[in-house]
Amino acid sequence: MTASTPQQRKKILVVSAHPEPRSLNASLTAFAVEHLRTAGHEVRVSDLYAMKWKATADADDFPDDVVDGRLEVMAASERATLAGRLSPDVAAEQEKVRWSDAVILQFPMWWFSAPAILKGWIDRVFTCGFGYGPAVPPPYGQGPLAGRRALLSVTVGARETSFSDRGVHGRLADVLHPVQHGLFWFTGMAPLEPFAVYGSNAVPVERFEAARREYARRLDGLFTDEPVPFRSLTGGDYDHDMRLLPGVEAPGTSGPDLHLLPRG
Amino acid sequence: MTASTPQQRKKILVVSAHPEPRSLNASLTAFAVEHLRTAGHEVRVSDLYAMKWKATADADDFPDDVVDGRLEVMAASERATLAGRLSPDVAAEQEKVRWSDAVILQFPMWWFSAPAILKGWIDRVFTCGFGYGPAVPPPYGQGPLAGRRALLSVTVGARETSFSDRGVHGRLADVLHPVQHGLFWFTGMAPLEPFAVYGSNAVPVERFEAARREYARRLDGLFTDEPVPFRSLTGGDYDHDMRLLPGVEAPGTSGPDLHLLPRG
Repeated sequence: MTASTPQQRKKILVVSAHPEPRSLNASLTAFAVEHLRTAGHEVRVSDLYAMKWKATADADDFPDDVVDGRLEVMAASERATLAGRLSPDVAAEQEKVRWSDAVILQFPMWWFSAPAILKGWIDRVFTCGFGYGPAVPPPYGQGPLAGRRALLSVTVGARETSFSDRGVHGRLADVLHPVQHGLFWFTGMAPLEPFAVYGSNAVPVERFEAARREYARRLDGLFTDEPVPFRSLTGGDYDHDMRLLPGVEAPGTSGPDLHLLPRG
Repeated sequence: MTASTPQQRKKILVVSAHPEPRSLNASLTAFAVEHLRTAGHEVRVSDLYAMKWKATADADDFPDDVVDGRLEVMAASERATLAGRLSPDVAAEQEKVRWSDAVILQFPMWWFSAPAILKGWIDRVFTCGFGYGPAVPPPYGQGPLAGRRALLSVTVGARETSFSDRGVHGRLADVLHPVQHGLFWFTGMAPLEPFAVYGSNAVPVERFEAARREYARRLDGLFTDEPVPFRSLTGGDYDHDMRLLPGVEAPGTSGPDLHLLPRG
């Protein structure tokens, strides 16, 4: 069976956030698109800088929906979502996410998180009524975007040791936890372990080729690798106040690791 | 001795990021400004939405500094910083940070981090050569902005239990670690424990008044409360690859807690 049989032909959205078309990030986006298409998949790209994506959520997003002259972002975003009155740029991105079987976010890590333009894609696209809220299924595992895979592909200026288990910058998984757990898993998407290229300010050819080989392996596993084993909110591990029940974790576990199922 | 004696008169920058002038965030910013001024301090405010702050770092920030038509953000930002050729909006914010003895960031938590407009303030203001880089002192404790205090004041839609030690959203300190440790401590600023108002989508009057009293107490302690005891990179706890040395932490410590000095 090849990847182009109907069962394995998948739809993938790549969201890319770098201002320079000849950057490492742009190269990795182009590589992913070609690799996935060669494998028989459908790919769409949101190149946020090329699109001049509006980063800032503001009253202009809800021109018909300011109550008594006052903007309540969450309520306004839910009304606009449920009534089909979102701004066209946001509606178009929601359509791409709904269309997809997997979402890849490609970005340079700036100040230990996504560049503002990508944060603004998250802020504006994942509206109340689309990514969360009372009108959609509950978060963490069963959310409205369940059934999709999600992969972060990041470039990092620092060296890998500084993001290792004892590295001063923190473990990469912890630094990216707000997106992995707080965006992907919250909305129902199943995140894979992030893919990272370290020392990204100067990548010699041989290291770039090694990175592409590794990225190819990760892209090949997009629908078959095991996702990060986050706990489901409704799986019996949390109480009604959304706190992990006493004793369900392995002894000595703390912090973000509490929310992982024990491995093995 | 009162707060208005020269020894205690301090300079505080409040950066506020909410689109609605009658929001809870705007109220907390106004309260902080008045409370700090009444105590004799000088206060400046960067109201990012009112300023129409440009969130996205791009080639327009470095019109004279694109080498061979290619933008390398970090290198371009360092050249512009060291040559005094930053765009006027960025230069003005750097001047405010340099002027300050303390920085307060006031924002609603959107998708477990700062709104894009504030992330864009961080991305664009903390340039190479200002917040980090080879031309300034090393990060984590001795950085170029050392001597300043820093406080996050956040509003959070969810309830407090869900951000408690075992809460599903993660501990507030872990969710905010990329800013607390990765921005403030990295650049040399000493962060205090964050101040948070939970359940922020509906705050009855009595809870708002309690929140203001608690915030007043935190503002009164801005220069006297103990900062988060993050480890210094150059304090002997890390090796040359920026990894924590074996055995310096309390037994059983893992994740972000590794980078805290043991308490007590």
